[in-house]
Amino acid sequence: MRATVLYGAGDVRVEKVPDARIVEATDAVVAVTRACICGSDLWPYQSMDKSETGRRMGHEFIGTVEEVGSDVRTVKKGDLVVAPFAWSDGTCEFCRRGLQTSCLHGGFWGGQLDGGQGEAVRVPLADGTLVPLPVGPDHALMPSLLTLSDVMGTGHHAALAAQAGPGRIVAVVGDGAVGLCGVIAARRLGAERILLLGRHPDRIALARAFGATDIVSERGDAAVERVLELTGGLGAHSVLECVGHAHSTETALRIARAGGAVGRVGLPQDAAIPVAVPTFFRNVTIAGGPAPVRAYIEELLPDVLEGRIEPGRVFDRVTELDGVPEGYRAMNDREAIKVMVKF
Amino acid sequence: MRATVLYGAGDVRVEKVPDARIVEATDAVVAVTRACICGSDLWPYQSMDKSETGRRMGHEFIGTVEEVGSDVRTVKKGDLVVAPFAWSDGTCEFCRRGLQTSCLHGGFWGGQLDGGQGEAVRVPLADGTLVPLPVGPDHALMPSLLTLSDVMGTGHHAALAAQAGPGRIVAVVGDGAVGLCGVIAARRLGAERILLLGRHPDRIALARAFGATDIVSERGDAAVERVLELTGGLGAHSVLECVGHAHSTETALRIARAGGAVGRVGLPQDAAIPVAVPTFFRNVTIAGGPAPVRAYIEELLPDVLEGRIEPGRVFDRVTELDGVPEGYRAMNDREAIKVMVKF
Repeated sequence: MRATVLYGAGDVRVEKVPDARIVEATDAVVAVTRACICGSDLWPYQSMDKSETGRRMGHEFIGTVEEVGSDVRTVKKGDLVVAPFAWSDGTCEFCRRGLQTSCLHGGFWGGQLDGGQGEAVRVPLADGTLVPLPVGPDHALMPSLLTLSDVMGTGHHAALAAQAGPGRIVAVVGDGAVGLCGVIAARRLGAERILLLGRHPDRIALARAFGATDIVSERGDAAVERVLELTGGLGAHSVLECVGHAHSTETALRIARAGGAVGRVGLPQDAAIPVAVPTFFRNVTIAGGPAPVRAYIEELLPDVLEGRIEPGRVFDRVTELDGVPEGYRAMNDREAIKVMVKF
Repeated sequence: MRATVLYGAGDVRVEKVPDARIVEATDAVVAVTRACICGSDLWPYQSMDKSETGRRMGHEFIGTVEEVGSDVRTVKKGDLVVAPFAWSDGTCEFCRRGLQTSCLHGGFWGGQLDGGQGEAVRVPLADGTLVPLPVGPDHALMPSLLTLSDVMGTGHHAALAAQAGPGRIVAVVGDGAVGLCGVIAARRLGAERILLLGRHPDRIALARAFGATDIVSERGDAAVERVLELTGGLGAHSVLECVGHAHSTETALRIARAGGAVGRVGLPQDAAIPVAVPTFFRNVTIAGGPAPVRAYIEELLPDVLEGRIEPGRVFDRVTELDGVPEGYRAMNDREAIKVMVKF
C-alpha cells in the first residue's frame, strides 16, 4: 500500500509501505476514505531532523473496516468508522473517566504504527477506538465528520477546559482549524461573546460565520490592550489557546480575567508556562491538553449529522494522496487552512 | 500606637506609628486582640532591600471594633471581628462571584495601610471586609478563629482548586501552616487518602492528627518516585502546592495524575511555571492563587465553632507584640510552625 512518510523538515514523501494487517486479536484494518493534514503535523514538517527510516504521518481519518481480529466486537467488516487521533482501550481507569488520551494501553498514530495519511491503517484496540458512522462513505457531511477525529473535538476540549458557557466572554487565540472549531464549540456551549484573535481575512470570515462576535487582529501588547478595551478592562472569562507558541500562550494568559480559565490545546513549544505570577494573583486556571476526542464523538455527532454545526468548512482544499506533500507546503505557507485527503 | 515595621531583610522592629483613625466614611478602626506571622511574611524578611520608611507588616488579625465611619452598617463599636488578608467592597463584579482578592476597589494590608501586627488597624471598606464573631475576645477557640483570616481559608482554597473530594488521592506539598490546613481542608472535603510531603517530625505529627494518611519525606526525584509508588504509578488526583518555590512547584506538577489538578497557593517565586509539556500531555489543570478567604469565613466558621476542625493547632508559639521580631526569627529558622501575637 502507499502512505505518507516524513524524512525530515520539508521532506514529505508518498511511497510504498508494508500493507496494514491484523497483528493482535483486538486489531482492525481500516481502508482510509478520508484523511487530512493537521496543524500539529507542521511542527515536525518545520523542524524534524533527517531520518533514514522516516516517520509515518497522519492521525485523522475515516475509513471502511476491511478486516477485524477475533476479539473485536463493536465494529465489523464494511462499517464506516471515524478514528480519534489517539487509540485507546475504552476500559482503563482513564478511559472510563473520559480521558482516552491518557489510556494506559493506548497511544498515538504514526511512529511504529500506520498513519492516517495512507491507504490503510492497522487500528489497535479497535473496540475502544473506532466509532461507526451511520452514513455512507461519500455522504456530503464527510468533511464535518472527519473533524470529529481531531480539530472539532480539540476545539470543544479547549472550550470546556476554559469553562466557556452562558454569560462568559470567550477569547480564541489562533485562527487555524482548531481555533475556528473553538469558536464553534464556544458558541455551541452558549458563550455570550466570542473574540477571535487572528489576522487572515478568509479565516476571519469563517470565524464570523461560526459565531465570532469580535475580531482582534493586533498582536502582542496591542492585542492584549484591545481585548481589555473590548471587555471593560477586565479580560475574557474563557481563553482558548489554540497555537502553542510562547507568544500566543503569553497573550492567552494575559487576556484572561481574574477568576477566568485558559484552555490550552496548542502543542506547547516551550518547557515552561510564562506569566506565572500575574496569573497566580488573578486566580487564573490553566487547563487542557490533548483532547480526548474519543469521549466527544458521540456528543458532537448528532450536531454534525443534523447540521447544527459545520466544522467541515475549515477544509478549504482537497487533494488525493499524491498531493499530500503539496498540501503540507500550502498549509505551512498559510495558503490553506486545512487540507482534506480523499482516497 | 505601636506596630511592626520591616526595614529590610532580617530587620523587624516594633515601634511607634501614627494612631489608626477613620479617614473614609466606610472605614472602621479595629483594636487588634490577636494577630500572627505568616509564612509569606518571611519572603520580605529574607530578601527585602533596605528601606528608610519601612513596610508595615501583618495581614491576619482579630480585634474589637473601636469606631466606625458614618457609612458602615454591618459592624459596630464593640463587635469582635476577624479580617481576611485582603480588604474588599463585597459588591463589585469579583466580590459577588466570591473572588474578593480581585476586588476592584480592595487591596492588601500593609504598605500605606496599617498592618495586622500592630495595636490597631484602620480597615477600609469595613462592611465588605470584616466578619463579626459570635464569641468573646478571650474564647478558647481564638487560635482556630484567627486562622480564618488566612491559612485555613488558603488551605481550603488550595483543596478546592485541586478538586479534592471523595474518591480522590490528595497530595499536599509543604508542611507549613498552609500545608497543614490543606490537610484539614482535604479531609473535610472527603478525600480518600492524603499524602503529606514534609520532613519535620512535629509538623508530620500534626499532619497525621489532621488526617494525613501517608508521609513522604523524600525530596525531588525521590519524592516523585515515592508518590508514584504510593499511587499505583499514577500520581495524585489533587495536589496542593503550599510553598511557591520552583522545586516545590515542579514536584507538585510532576506528581499530579493525568486529568488531575494542582491547586497553587504558595506565592510563586519564579516568573514561569515549569513542566509545561508533561502537564499538557497529562491534561493536568493548574489553578489557584491568593485565596478569597472572605468568601470562605462563613462556610468554615461553624466547623471551627463546633470543634469539627482545629486549625489553631498550627500555632506552636505565642508572643506579645514586643516578641514579634523573635517570632520572625523562629519561624524563619523553622523552630516554630506559626507564631500567634496576643495583645
